[in-house]
This record gives sequence, structure tokens and C-alpha cells, in this order.
Amino acid sequence: MRERRMVEARKLSSLANWKCAYPMIEFRPVVHILGWIAVLTGMLLILPTLTDISVGDPDWLPFSISATTALTLGLMMTLSTFGERTLVLDLRQAFLVTVLGWVVVGVLGAIPMTGIGIGFLDALFESISGITTTGSTVIVGLDRMPPGLLLWRAILQWIGGIGIIAIAVLILPILRIGGMQLFRIESSDTSSEKVASALSMLTGLLAVYGVLTAACAGSFYACGMSGFDALTHAMATVSTGGFSTHDASFRYFEGRSLQWVGTVFMISGATPFVLYIRAIRGGLDSLVRDSQVRVFIGLLVALSLLVSLWLSEIRDRPFLDAVTVAAFNITSIVTTTGFVSENYNIWGAGAAGLFLVLMFVGGCTGSTSGAIKIYRFQILFLFVRAQVKRLISPNRVVPLSYNGKHLTDDVSVSVLAFWAVFIASIAVVTVVLNVLGLDIVTAYSASVTAISNVGPGLGDIVGPTGNFATLPDAAKALLIGAMLAGRLEILALLVTLNREFWRY
Amino acid sequence: MRERRMVEARKLSSLANWKCAYPMIEFRPVVHILGWIAVLTGMLLILPTLTDISVGDPDWLPFSISATTALTLGLMMTLSTFGERTLVLDLRQAFLVTVLGWVVVGVLGAIPMTGIGIGFLDALFESISGITTTGSTVIVGLDRMPPGLLLWRAILQWIGGIGIIAIAVLILPILRIGGMQLFRIESSDTSSEKVASALSMLTGLLAVYGVLTAACAGSFYACGMSGFDALTHAMATVSTGGFSTHDASFRYFEGRSLQWVGTVFMISGATPFVLYIRAIRGGLDSLVRDSQVRVFIGLLVALSLLVSLWLSEIRDRPFLDAVTVAAFNITSIVTTTGFVSENYNIWGAGAAGLFLVLMFVGGCTGSTSGAIKIYRFQILFLFVRAQVKRLISPNRVVPLSYNGKHLTDDVSVSVLAFWAVFIASIAVVTVVLNVLGLDIVTAYSASVTAISNVGPGLGDIVGPTGNFATLPDAAKALLIGAMLAGRLEILALLVTLNREFWRY
Repeated sequence: MRERRMVEARKLSSLANWKCAYPMIEFRPVVHILGWIAVLTGMLLILPTLTDISVGDPDWLPFSISATTALTLGLMMTLSTFGERTLVLDLRQAFLVTVLGWVVVGVLGAIPMTGIGIGFLDALFESISGITTTGSTVIVGLDRMPPGLLLWRAILQWIGGIGIIAIAVLILPILRIGGMQLFRIESSDTSSEKVASALSMLTGLLAVYGVLTAACAGSFYACGMSGFDALTHAMATVSTGGFSTHDASFRYFEGRSLQWVGTVFMISGATPFVLYIRAIRGGLDSLVRDSQVRVFIGLLVALSLLVSLWLSEIRDRPFLDAVTVAAFNITSIVTTTGFVSENYNIWGAGAAGLFLVLMFVGGCTGSTSGAIKIYRFQILFLFVRAQVKRLISPNRVVPLSYNGKHLTDDVSVSVLAFWAVFIASIAVVTVVLNVLGLDIVTAYSASVTAISNVGPGLGDIVGPTGNFATLPDAAKALLIGAMLAGRLEILALLVTLNREFWRY
Repeated sequence: MRERRMVEARKLSSLANWKCAYPMIEFRPVVHILGWIAVLTGMLLILPTLTDISVGDPDWLPFSISATTALTLGLMMTLSTFGERTLVLDLRQAFLVTVLGWVVVGVLGAIPMTGIGIGFLDALFESISGITTTGSTVIVGLDRMPPGLLLWRAILQWIGGIGIIAIAVLILPILRIGGMQLFRIESSDTSSEKVASALSMLTGLLAVYGVLTAACAGSFYACGMSGFDALTHAMATVSTGGFSTHDASFRYFEGRSLQWVGTVFMISGATPFVLYIRAIRGGLDSLVRDSQVRVFIGLLVALSLLVSLWLSEIRDRPFLDAVTVAAFNITSIVTTTGFVSENYNIWGAGAAGLFLVLMFVGGCTGSTSGAIKIYRFQILFLFVRAQVKRLISPNRVVPLSYNGKHLTDDVSVSVLAFWAVFIASIAVVTVVLNVLGLDIVTAYSASVTAISNVGPGLGDIVGPTGNFATLPDAAKALLIGAMLAGRLEILALLVTLNREFWRY
């Protein structure tokens, strides 16, 4: 009893002493890296500032103030921890950086929006929806908004996209989240070599990401978009984010060619970026032969053909038209982009159910895509098939292999844990949203679309032609958490919420 | 090539030769046991025959014809295989008996209904809904129906209830379906002792089931039901089936006491029946200390209190009234009975979501209850918690134990496979129902309620005040399959659909 009281007393004593009470996490490297992230955000905030200055819009002021704030805060954080900086984090520091990184950018990204008449909760929703590449919006009247804001929304998605790629390639495999250890890159032995190879990988990823975005913007422009629309939509496409600069989303644009450009680049954003780098280094077949990519492309082709045949046969639409809208909207949902080129809710019976199920799918891992992702479906299938075989002949050993690699129990079990937590999170968020007054279709589809980082849900409010603006504040706050949880593959968030994380 | 052709030729040759082509499943014991099941069904069909004769209703004719058919068919099956009968089945025979047993009773149970003006598909739906203790109905105008049919519906549920208890206690643990190996009873060594102990267990289960039903009927009668209603509702309550003899279901009855009797006996039907037998043999604490029972009761009490507080505070209902309807309807859905004493859909925001999630829960294993069941939630929770701990400290071994027993990997993995297949089945059935023209709420809730063997879904058609009668035929056919799959814990059905089951 006396001892416990002493611990309590020590806890409450000066912060300088907390290390003694808990021999624990060293926060300095975490703060240092978060500082660099804030600095980067501040530098990016200069872009919308300049844009608004160039068109003479007074919104340059909140952007410039936010840029200054972010830069100052970031520099304070990095400089105050400069002496102890290190790029080799231990496990818990890596978890913390991963989780807090999104929070830092999310909050800093919201600040300029609060300066132009958007309430803080809405601004935070929009900012988190951006960096998690979800693409649900609470802003009505996008077409009349100044270019700075529209550019900033696109930039948030774009950095969110490269952020998740970097984390999925470099950090999640080490944290062993949801079976990601399967995608661990063989690394060198010494710490300094590890850092060097990680930095070289990061540069490569960023280069591929930049080239894809530029190619997408160029193609959009060539097919008739304005320069500004081409740039912002390219950023939202390759990041599989889905923010548009128009309330009507992709329905604003006419012509099939734009939709096909969008389809191709959404797919490119949902493909494992490591495979691009391998392909450039001479192994084009590693991209073509990858089992995840094959299933992903096969699924998109099969579904698009099926739906377009249905649209042309039953709904009497010209086939070329049907295949375009089917491919675009299905790719948009499966890759978790969330662009809408048509209100697919009115395609008829089955459309709502199909799109609801597609929201769970997601693209490949190591891409900008959210949701469950293809490889977890493949591993689940392998696992269940092996289980059924073992029910028939109990003493049989059924070895599993995926993409040419032996599948350890550790991976299967992590994948199953991910599935369980994913489904359970959706159930919990659905019930709470329902209690907050949303009808069951809106509650369920909003929950799925947020946790999967897709964007649109079903129904009039959160559906493809709706807007999240009218939701009650509590629902928006919950969805902010859901989007973050989904982006962090949920388990990464759960880990940092576990008591043992902080104690042992 | 030539060899393959020879095999084909042999396949097509006389049935007497098939054993040579495939050294495989010995069907005679399977047919023998199915014959006994048909004989039993025929004997039970005499009861509604006598009932209709006693009230002078002409429906005694179809019932007597069906009884004769079932008895004749059953005797032919048993007698033709008499020489080779055995009660010790191998693994594949056990799978086949488990699956085909339900089909045999389902089809035989439908025949009398087709004789009284119900179409075959509707009759099969009603019959399968009965024996799977689901309780969804396609018959409108129950209050005007002759007593024979109403009694037969109750009997179908009642034998379905004892059927699933017997299978869950004696067969599923051996088949190792969905983690049921955890509930394997230590058995004797020799085959004859095994049969003797299985028969003694079966007798015990039947006795407990009979006593509970009698006690329930007596209590209903004492609280004001007519003798016939008391009997039929007792059969539907203890079997957690939920067929009523009135279109209005439990809303037909007045007074709180009947609802409390119903609540108590629904809980009794959803409790592991093996624990009753252990309690009678002197171990009352095994019932009280069972971790699954504790969580089950705790969940019901907590939810009922929460909802009744909400009903009384927000909706201004008298507390005693609120706690009665809350306890009754929540218990009804969680135990997968499906009685409705009030249209809970209009209780307000959150009710639909809550009841939708509750449909997944189910009671304890080894009871008449369907759905996922409490122990699978407990094991999932233990598993995910262990996973999170292992993410924090990778080299740690986290031993799992459940209800005082060590939890082997085999059990955890089976439970997870069950979860995966359960959720995937619901997704598939939802999409197909949606394609067949049902709106998304109806499609989703009908899918969940059928696979979970609950009864009512959500919305106007399949909801608590609706009726499955107006669904398209294809939807009814699919739901018949879904109810059967759910009752067989899905995996048992998947096994018999696997090619290897028939080949190796």
C-alpha cells in the first residue's frame, strides 16, 4: 500500500523524474521525427499560400499563418531533441511515430481551414479524411472555393499516400501488423546500413510516386481537364484519395477518356510500390507474376465485364459507355479511391450490395490503398481451405505457401487477427452511429467507408451523391477516429492503447 | 489417357461396381441411420394426424399420408441395410449423417404442408425453418390454421432442438467443427463402451429437454395461455425456435408474467445441456462457474438493464414494463429464438443497429441456440489480446486458457476459421439477395437472421412485424440453404462439398 502510494507520488512529481518511476519509452527520438514531419507540413503549406496570393485571394493569410506555426513548432521539436536524434527506433518508438505522425499532420492540416470559416471539427474531419486518403468531404460548394484550399486538400491526400506507402514498406512489416511481416524486405546487418538502405528505398518510392502523379496529371490535361484540375485530381488519383475540386466529383467531367485515365492511375496507386522498384531494376516479371497483383487485376476485369454486360443487356446502355462507367466506379471503390462518375446506387437491384461488399476489398498491400487488401483475402482462402482439408483427414499436415514463399503460422494468425479486429471495429462504429441517430444503412456504410478509407457510403447522406456535412458532430468525431484506425490497420492503434505498451 | 477412359467407363458401369473405382465411403450405415430418422419423423407425424381427427379437420388426411410415406420409406431404408448396421461411424459417415439427417427430416416435414394448400417451396421453407429452429415463417393467417399444422410446426422445432443438442454434444466435437473439440467429452476406450456411453448421454439430454419443455408449458398455462398455446409455445421456447401459433407472435399475449416465463425458458434452452446433466450428478457449481454461462447471463442482464433504463428515462415508459419488454426481446434475439413481444424497430435510434449486431451473438454451445455463440467471442477476444501482446514483445509466449483448460492452437485456429466462413457466407448471401431485388437492409438482415437461425430480420418485410411470404422464390430457396448451412455450423456443410471428401 505504502509502496503504491510512493509510485503515485513519483508519477505526480516533476516530469524530469518520470524515467525513474517507469524505466520506459525514450520519447526524444519520437519527438524529433514528429518535428521533422511538422516542418515538412509547414513547407508544403507554403504552396497554397502562394497559390492564393497569385490569384489575389485573401485566404493566403490563414495559410501563411499555419505554415509559420507548423514550421516554428516543428523546428522547436527537432532542435530541442537534436542531440539525441537517431533514425533507428525501437519497436515501441516505431509504433508511436506511426500513430502520432498522422495526428500531427492531421491537426496541422486542419488549422488553415479553421481560418477560412470552417469549424474546427469539420476542418479536422476534412484534414484527416485527406491524409488517410479516405476522401469523404464535409465541405459543400467546392466549385466556388479558392484554389488554395482545393490545392491543400489535394496535397494532404498526396502526402498521406506516400506516407502510408513508406510506412507499409518500411515500418509495418517490422511491427508485424496484420501479416505484413510477409512483405519484409531483407535488410542489411548493421544499423547504419539499415538506415542507408531504408533511405534509398524511400527515395525510390518517392520517385515512382512523383513520376506516376506527373504522368497522371499530364494525361488528364491532355484529355481535356484544366491545368489546375489535372494536377489536383492526379494527386487524388495516385494517392487513391478521391477528393475532387467539384461537388459533383468525377461526374463534373465529360468524355470517356478521362475516366479511363483515372481507372489506369487508380490501379497504379493500388499496386505494391516495391514491385515498381524491382521492375525498374530489371525484374519486370516480379510485377507480372506477383500473385496479389494478378488476383487484383483479375478481380477488377471480371467484375467490370460482368457489370458492364449487365448494364448493356438489361439497362440497354451502349456497351462502350457501360464498360467505362463500370470499370471506373468499380476500380474507384476497390482501390478505395472513392471518385464517383455516376450514381451507381440507381443502377438497380444488386448494385448497393455489390458496392457495399467491394468497400471491404481494397487494393494490394504496400500501396496507397486501404481496406482489408487482396493478400489477406488470399491468405484467408488458403487458410480456410487447409482447415476444411484437415477436417476431412485430421492427421494431415497441410503446408501453406503464398507467392512462392512458405506461409508461417505467425503470418496466418496475424492475418486472421486483422480480419477479426476489422470486422469488430465496423460493428462497434455502426452501432454507435446508429445510436447517434443515423439510419442503419447510413450508419453501416459510413462505418465501412471510413474504416476502409474509401470515401462514399450508401444512402442519401453519405452515398455517392451525398455529403458528410449534415452528420451530427459526435458522428463526425467518431468517423475521424475510424478513418485513422483504418489507415493504421487498426492493430497498430490497438497496440498503443494497450496498458502493457506503456508499462513493461 | 487410356487409363482415364477406363476409370470413366468403370464409373459409368453398374452401381454394384462403384466400390472398385473409388475405394470409398461405405454408405450402408449412413442409409441405415437416416432410415431410423425417417421412421421417427413418421411416428411423430401421427400426432398432428390425431389432433386434426379429434377436432374433425380434414387435414388429418395429408398428415396420415405423410406419416405412412415416412414410415414406409424409413423402414425400407433400415431393413434393406439391416445386416450391416453399426452405430460407430467413421469420420466421413458422421459428416454425411449430420448433413443429410436435416435434409431428410426437412423434406419429410414439408410433405404434409403441401397437402393442405401450401406450395412445395413454401412448405420446405417452413419445414427447414422449423427444424433449424430459425422460426422465420412464410405462412400468413396462422390464427385461422387447423391445430394439426400448428402442432406440426412446433414439433419440427422441438425435434430440431434436441437434434442439434445431440449433434453438438456427441458429433461436432469429434468432427472438430469450429473449435468444438474444446467440448469433447472424455469417452471410454472400446467401441461398445463408447456406444453405451453415447446412448446414456443421449437419454440424459432427452430427459432434461423433456422436463424443461414440460415445466415451460406448465408455467405458460399457469400464467394464462390456453393448453394448446402453452404446449406449442413451450416447444418453440425451449428449442429457441420461435414459431408462434399467432401472426402477432408473442404480441398476441397480454401480461408481463408470460414474457418472464418465456425469458427464463429461452435462457434455459440456450445453456449447455451437458452442464445440466453434470449439475444433476452433483456438480451444481459446474453450471454456476462455467465461464461461457457467466458471460452469457452477464451480457443479457447488462443489455436488458441498459435498454430498459433507456426506455424508461428517454421514452417515459414505466420501468417494470420497460425491463420486461427489453429482457424478453433481447433474450429472444441473443438466444436466436426470434419471438417478438413488441416492434423494437420503433424504439428509436440505435435499436435497429443493436438488434442487428445481437443477431450474430447466439447463446452457449451444446444448446439449441444458433449463431456464432458466446465461447467463440471469448476465444476471439483471448486470441486478439494475445496477438496485441505479442506485437509489443515479439518473443513472448502467451499461453491461452479457457474455462480452466489450456487452449491449443488447433482450437483457436478452428474458431477463427469458423468466424471467417460465417462472415463470408453472410456477405455472399446478402449480395445474391440484393441482386434478386431485395433492398439492402432486407437482404442483409435476412441473410444474418437465416445463417444465425434467429428468425426475424429488419425492415417491413422480414422485420419483427413482417413475414417472409412475399419474398421471391429464388430468395426463399437461398434462405433455405442459408438456414441449413447456419445450423450445420457452415464448415460441416463445406466439408461435404469439398471434392477431396468424396475422393480420397
